Amino acid sequence: MSETEIAKVCINEFKQGERIEGFFLIKSVDLKTANANGRKYLDFVIADKTGDISAKLWEVSKEIEESITNNIIVKIRGTVVAWQATLQLKIEKVRFTTEEDNINIDEYVQSAPIKSEELYDLIKIYIDDMKNRDMQNIVNAIFEKNREKLLYYPAAKKNHHAIRGGLLYHVYTMLVNAENLLKVYDFMDNDLVFAGVILHDLSKMEEMDSNELGIVSEYTLEGTLLGHISQGVKKVELVGNEVNADKRIITLLQHMILSHHYEPEFGSPVKPMIPEAELLHFLDVMDARMYDMRRMINETKPGEFSEKLWSLENRRIYNHGDLS
Amino acid sequence: MSETEIAKVCINEFKQGERIEGFFLIKSVDLKTANANGRKYLDFVIADKTGDISAKLWEVSKEIEESITNNIIVKIRGTVVAWQATLQLKIEKVRFTTEEDNINIDEYVQSAPIKSEELYDLIKIYIDDMKNRDMQNIVNAIFEKNREKLLYYPAAKKNHHAIRGGLLYHVYTMLVNAENLLKVYDFMDNDLVFAGVILHDLSKMEEMDSNELGIVSEYTLEGTLLGHISQGVKKVELVGNEVNADKRIITLLQHMILSHHYEPEFGSPVKPMIPEAELLHFLDVMDARMYDMRRMINETKPGEFSEKLWSLENRRIYNHGDLS
Amino acid sequence: MSETEIAKVCINEFKQGERIEGFFLIKSVDLKTANANGRKYLDFVIADKTGDISAKLWEVSKEIEESITNNIIVKIRGTVVAWQATLQLKIEKVRFTTEEDNINIDEYVQSAPIKSEELYDLIKIYIDDMKNRDMQNIVNAIFEKNREKLLYYPAAKKNHHAIRGGLLYHVYTMLVNAENLLKVYDFMDNDLVFAGVILHDLSKMEEMDSNELGIVSEYTLEGTLLGHISQGVKKVELVGNEVNADKRIITLLQHMILSHHYEPEFGSPVKPMIPEAELLHFLDVMDARMYDMRRMINETKPGEFSEKLWSLENRRIYNHGDLS
Amino acid sequence: MSETEIAKVCINEFKQGERIEGFFLIKSVDLKTANANGRKYLDFVIADKTGDISAKLWEVSKEIEESITNNIIVKIRGTVVAWQATLQLKIEKVRFTTEEDNINIDEYVQSAPIKSEELYDLIKIYIDDMKNRDMQNIVNAIFEKNREKLLYYPAAKKNHHAIRGGLLYHVYTMLVNAENLLKVYDFMDNDLVFAGVILHDLSKMEEMDSNELGIVSEYTLEGTLLGHISQGVKKVELVGNEVNADKRIITLLQHMILSHHYEPEFGSPVKPMIPEAELLHFLDVMDARMYDMRRMINETKPGEFSEKLWSLENRRIYNHGDLS
Amino acid sequence: MSETEIAKVCINEFKQGERIEGFFLIKSVDLKTANANGRKYLDFVIADKTGDISAKLWEVSKEIEESITNNIIVKIRGTVVAWQATLQLKIEKVRFTTEEDNINIDEYVQSAPIKSEELYDLIKIYIDDMKNRDMQNIVNAIFEKNREKLLYYPAAKKNHHAIRGGLLYHVYTMLVNAENLLKVYDFMDNDLVFAGVILHDLSKMEEMDSNELGIVSEYTLEGTLLGHISQGVKKVELVGNEVNADKRIITLLQHMILSHHYEPEFGSPVKPMIPEAELLHFLDVMDARMYDMRRMINETKPGEFSEKLWSLENRRIYNHGDLS
Amino acid sequence: MSETEIAKVCINEFKQGERIEGFFLIKSVDLKTANANGRKYLDFVIADKTGDISAKLWEVSKEIEESITNNIIVKIRGTVVAWQATLQLKIEKVRFTTEEDNINIDEYVQSAPIKSEELYDLIKIYIDDMKNRDMQNIVNAIFEKNREKLLYYPAAKKNHHAIRGGLLYHVYTMLVNAENLLKVYDFMDNDLVFAGVILHDLSKMEEMDSNELGIVSEYTLEGTLLGHISQGVKKVELVGNEVNADKRIITLLQHMILSHHYEPEFGSPVKPMIPEAELLHFLDVMDARMYDMRRMINETKPGEFSEKLWSLENRRIYNHGDLS
Repeated sequence: MSETEIAKVCINEFKQGERIEGFFLIKSVDLKTANANGRKYLDFVIADKTGDISAKLWEVSKEIEESITNNIIVKIRGTVVAWQATLQLKIEKVRFTTEEDNINIDEYVQSAPIKSEELYDLIKIYIDDMKNRDMQNIVNAIFEKNREKLLYYPAAKKNHHAIRGGLLYHVYTMLVNAENLLKVYDFMDNDLVFAGVILHDLSKMEEMDSNELGIVSEYTLEGTLLGHISQGVKKVELVGNEVNADKRIITLLQHMILSHHYEPEFGSPVKPMIPEAELLHFLDVMDARMYDMRRMINETKPGEFSEKLWSLENRRIYNHGDLS
Repeated sequence: MSETEIAKVCINEFKQGERIEGFFLIKSVDLKTANANGRKYLDFVIADKTGDISAKLWEVSKEIEESITNNIIVKIRGTVVAWQATLQLKIEKVRFTTEEDNINIDEYVQSAPIKSEELYDLIKIYIDDMKNRDMQNIVNAIFEKNREKLLYYPAAKKNHHAIRGGLLYHVYTMLVNAENLLKVYDFMDNDLVFAGVILHDLSKMEEMDSNELGIVSEYTLEGTLLGHISQGVKKVELVGNEVNADKRIITLLQHMILSHHYEPEFGSPVKPMIPEAELLHFLDVMDARMYDMRRMINETKPGEFSEKLWSLENRRIYNHGDLS
Repeated sequence: MSETEIAKVCINEFKQGERIEGFFLIKSVDLKTANANGRKYLDFVIADKTGDISAKLWEVSKEIEESITNNIIVKIRGTVVAWQATLQLKIEKVRFTTEEDNINIDEYVQSAPIKSEELYDLIKIYIDDMKNRDMQNIVNAIFEKNREKLLYYPAAKKNHHAIRGGLLYHVYTMLVNAENLLKVYDFMDNDLVFAGVILHDLSKMEEMDSNELGIVSEYTLEGTLLGHISQGVKKVELVGNEVNADKRIITLLQHMILSHHYEPEFGSPVKPMIPEAELLHFLDVMDARMYDMRRMINETKPGEFSEKLWSLENRRIYNHGDLS
Repeated sequence: MSETEIAKVCINEFKQGERIEGFFLIKSVDLKTANANGRKYLDFVIADKTGDISAKLWEVSKEIEESITNNIIVKIRGTVVAWQATLQLKIEKVRFTTEEDNINIDEYVQSAPIKSEELYDLIKIYIDDMKNRDMQNIVNAIFEKNREKLLYYPAAKKNHHAIRGGLLYHVYTMLVNAENLLKVYDFMDNDLVFAGVILHDLSKMEEMDSNELGIVSEYTLEGTLLGHISQGVKKVELVGNEVNADKRIITLLQHMILSHHYEPEFGSPVKPMIPEAELLHFLDVMDARMYDMRRMINETKPGEFSEKLWSLENRRIYNHGDLS
Repeated sequence: MSETEIAKVCINEFKQGERIEGFFLIKSVDLKTANANGRKYLDFVIADKTGDISAKLWEVSKEIEESITNNIIVKIRGTVVAWQATLQLKIEKVRFTTEEDNINIDEYVQSAPIKSEELYDLIKIYIDDMKNRDMQNIVNAIFEKNREKLLYYPAAKKNHHAIRGGLLYHVYTMLVNAENLLKVYDFMDNDLVFAGVILHDLSKMEEMDSNELGIVSEYTLEGTLLGHISQGVKKVELVGNEVNADKRIITLLQHMILSHHYEPEFGSPVKPMIPEAELLHFLDVMDARMYDMRRMINETKPGEFSEKLWSLENRRIYNHGDLS
Repeated sequence: MSETEIAKVCINEFKQGERIEGFFLIKSVDLKTANANGRKYLDFVIADKTGDISAKLWEVSKEIEESITNNIIVKIRGTVVAWQATLQLKIEKVRFTTEEDNINIDEYVQSAPIKSEELYDLIKIYIDDMKNRDMQNIVNAIFEKNREKLLYYPAAKKNHHAIRGGLLYHVYTMLVNAENLLKVYDFMDNDLVFAGVILHDLSKMEEMDSNELGIVSEYTLEGTLLGHISQGVKKVELVGNEVNADKRIITLLQHMILSHHYEPEFGSPVKPMIPEAELLHFLDVMDARMYDMRRMINETKPGEFSEKLWSLENRRIYNHGDLS
């Protein structure tokens, strides 16, 4: 390939001297000043699904400087160079993407295994089947109002279900499990369990700022000062009043939200005092743990232990491989 | 005194055989059935400011059976008898009190050292002096709407300030202390501290059921399932929306309420993240402790240790007497 | 009824003066000596499904003194008397039951809602379906060898599933739940989960001494000094060697047993390091909690809170009644 | 400016190639040996109020090598060079300061907002006003004997009040707050509170080695092995005996010191058992927290969160800016 | 035996109706007032080595009322009666003992297995053999000054070595063990270990009030407010200054005392930082535990478990009997 | 020395440019690829008793690449070069050692102060002296079968006794101490204590993989999933059955092993319930602590504090130097 040709290769195939062009996710970007000459430059880490690489842009236009940010996908052209024995991309040009670029987000960020629109509809069925009108009204009002955001919000910034559409996916798998367990533990109010499952984490959409890639840049001020549990309680209060729900139903739903982390040090000021809240807690923590376990197993070779994972209480997980 | 005369003596002066008549506080009352003959009777513990005594009523009218309850003041006539070597009152007649009886409640239950009406007005001055209109509107709306209950509510069921008007008194002493400390720690927003002090415990009026004697019979359902901290957050949300307050002010006030117990295991899901919330925590716990310390010292002879008190972490307090 | 007639009434229908005869469960029995005359007597508490009552036997034969014990069903004849305003049974005659008495145990002790023999067969199907021969052999060997005891053993002395056949019932509901959850969490080895579920508590049969009523009188010496978790590990070691199982399979099964209580202070020296062990932990604790929750709800009136239950971390449970 | 001129600029204005001369605080200094040629050199970090910079001295005289130390102010002449893209000072000459240099310490280290001499006198008034002669004698003897050190000692090595004169300042603000709170909590012995406040941390002067800049280089051997609380108890014992104080007064003062950290894991083997000790604890911890809060707010822009601060239990503090 | 004869029997041989006379230990005594007639009486529990019994004295002389106290040995004459089916002693006469009564204390209270005088001398040998003069002087001064009290003081109010002379016995067994262990761990300063062992608990004599029977009635005021560890540190400070000891030796000895409980929550504000202090901790806790273990084994039949013992962290101990 | 001569110097005497040859321990070795040219090389850290140094081998033969590993001793020839101001060895040749090289392991790794063979025989005496045949048979069977490994196994991977032969040495010092303490605490079964001491850590040989240098590279799979305590219990079960030991003896030995870490969070699911187990715990922890203390003192100059050591709960240890 002549030096002037421009390759459309993946990051893990970059070779020194090559010129490349393509779409990349900006994982981080900082404006820096060179010690040597005092010139400003942008210091990037860019990524595609095959890996990431450091990149530098030396000619920083006013427009780029002011609007570039991490966690977006951009088009980049540049040359692969070596610096201190490591490959690096010297950027010639960077521009924002447009609709015409027709980017497939799934090539850049991880998404839930079921499409968000489908998850939304599957959950909607549970709401439609509720017998208690007050619960149905409250859940429905909150669920429908947030459809747009629900389609991309993750369930966490870093931990379990921190993927595009992760919040919906987390809710959906919990609903499926709830439905099965309620056949065995048949002394509970099914509506209350389903309503609790759907509502328990919805205020994460107010606790965290996520872009449409499902990447959370930071917690909101209100999220930091109050936490999604208190935010959820408030939300149910306002919507409950709007739809004129029975005060006792509102209180029970708020108790579900308030107690679902179970331990005070994890944010629940009260422990479950109704069976439905107890079950919600187990549905939540079990789904989170199984998500992390699956991820660890996938990242670990058979016969080996994974790295320690904070959200699994710093455990290393063993992949025992096929036992059959 | 002839046997038929009726004495108006205090409980600690009762003598066997005496007939007495007077007003007493019912501390407990239970409907029981005698093993011997299957007759129903009411088993009381009644009290005045000098002590308490067991009492029994054998002729139970339908009206009395249905409406009698503990923690009210009634007029009782009866005879002092001895049973198993202990004095007891055999009640002849019991009736509810009326306005004409002109009962002085302070003779039956402990009240705050300043009259409730006066406390209310003293606190009102702090509200009137607030510069931030949003905070003023929120605090004022909640404060004024609850005037009637505030005049008798205690601050707790059993612990510190569990006296008639204790809630107002607790708030007022905290305001006085806050005002002084803010002169030294002069980098904070005074309105925010004062608003936090006034609001922090107001939802105890929804958490606990108190009668007009300032005696709490039990926690409300909502109070048990949510706790006064979450209830306070909800209340500020609703009122804040009503008075059209700035969302950030609402959030800051809610953070004050949410964090004022400081430790998760005491009900605060977040720790103070603004200095005003940190100060509120200290004002609150210090006032509670000093209240309990004063009580323990008053109940203990110089040179001796008090009983252990649960709310002082099971410490026994030493009364060192006069040191001057 | 003439005084010589003998009634066959339930305990909650006993009347003073009545003579009665029937089968009763001995809940406790102590040999005592009367202060007054130095005579020996047996002091019982006896029960049927309607309640319990104190009972005394004054003529104690050598045979009865030596062989009578609590937690058995006996035939008793006696007279209802009143002592200190409480009914009591003065026993005239007590004898042990025989097969001909044809006692229906379910009238005296609580049993699992599914018959033990049926539960045994239902669990057996899971074993028969296992693909991994080593696991199947180990589980089968232990399961079949203990069939007789399994039919009556409870899962605990006092806590969850402390009923006749409770151990089998606990295992069976966990298997059903496991089967459902494994459809969602489909990256695990099903055999390993099922084997873990079946084995996890089986050594409770060596930790506790239960009679055929499913009532545990005490822990065995080995149970106290080692605990059922260590006993289970040893059992799998011995049986695993007997059936010539792969050492890695033995280790994995032992890890499942060892880690299923999760927390060191609850007896698990290691935390789960494979997803199957994590799931087993949740299946176990969730089933125990739901059992206790159901029991509390059943014992509590709608709109009220239950007593505190130790195994629910001293929580009181709220029965919200019908919400539909 | 020609290259040979010598600039008297602040560190944050250093430019490559410049020669500079001025007074700087040595924050650290290490004697090292160059790998290349085995020559010894001194590796400094020097600071003024605008920042700090790495500096190297290659010609190390015997005198300098032996007496140079960190946390002193010296006069330095040198040239600004760049090494690995960072500015650095190549020192030509360094000398110790003399009185004639007339250094203003406040330009190099942070001091209390009130002059130490004034703080000393303000505190002295509280001592002079004491009514209990024994307390007055003990406090006075310790206070006067340590006047010289008190004028510069900080209250901590790193945490709250780690500034020149910080110990006196900490004591003084606590005294002011104590005086105000004692008007509300008027059942205590004022002398005992004031004496406790003044004495509670004085043994930090024996626990830590501070130079006259108020910078603590390290803990003393005795301070490490015993801690300032035990040292304070001993000091009161010795001085109490010297001034012939009543044994009970000595014990009460020692209890104040011993219990003022409240929690065993923070060094208090007993909890407060007198109200004065309880109040002292709150005065102390509240003043420390408010000091840190003020510092964090000052270092944080409005609308942002501070860094985590260890002494605030790793909280980040939010600067809400002006709310009026 | 005629009714007028007076028996000198042990408590476990008392029979109804018998008149008895003898020496007994008063375990508790309370002045009470009879409900029936308002007469004062003294309510005792008295004991000898065979057991204890309730006793009542109805004619209470002024002298007896004022000077009688628990934990002394008195001479009692009275009649055995039965009340509510329990034996009780109706006292006719009680008098204090005199030297002529020639009471053998060991028949009433448990003492160390070696005579106190002998223990004192055995410990003295360790002091005499010390090479470090400062340590020897400090230890000797404290040890000799307290000889009289040491001969009867127990090491605790309730827990390990709560027997007459228990303090000396505890010290002595620790010295013997220390001497052996120091042969294996031969890198320590033997004098420092021995001095630490002897001093570590000596201030228990100031923390607790023991009578000459070795029975502790209560903690002293200073003991409660400061604790024996702080008292020990003070004592070493005063005596160390008196004998002009090296300051470093004083500090090391104080560190030994201060750290010997190891955990802050057990009263040690610092953890051992020298090997001698670490060893002292183990010597102390091991001797306490072994004392309690031996006691539990002695009180438990072979093949059985003891009661739970608080000082063994509520464990029940198993007596395995002879294994050979 | 001419440049072609080959020096046999110690690492701390290496000079730039020198050629050296000698035996070295490989502390770590990684196969890496150079960024510049894509060539493979081996990156070593090698050590002798005087220190360690980085080393690189650029010509990697297939045989070396496949069989080289850390924690072995090899013969190396190479040249000392400087890279980034640090000395480094450029390896020319590396070969495995043979018997003829006659390596003295003690020059490369730390060993117990008594020869392993001697320790083995000293411990054997304790076994031979046991009176209880069952214990003797169990201990002997396990001890003899593992003789070969015992001669080099350490007692830990990193902490106390992590030296060649450390396991035997740890057991031996504990036996000596046990023998002495049992003279004072003479109510225990000596055989049980000695058996417990010998068995308590033997399964560390199955928990960790150690090479013959006594260096542990990693934990075994079984060791990680079960831990040496559970492994020890299993081992005693199997061997106990083999030698037909009494079931109660087996249980007691297993209880000793199971409880010897005392705290659940350190791996003991049950606490000691027999005195012998309590003593074993103290013998173990005391020996570990004293080992670490001795090491810290040896590595620290008189008058100074050591670094913090994790296994001493992050304490720094003070070396007080000679006190005599």
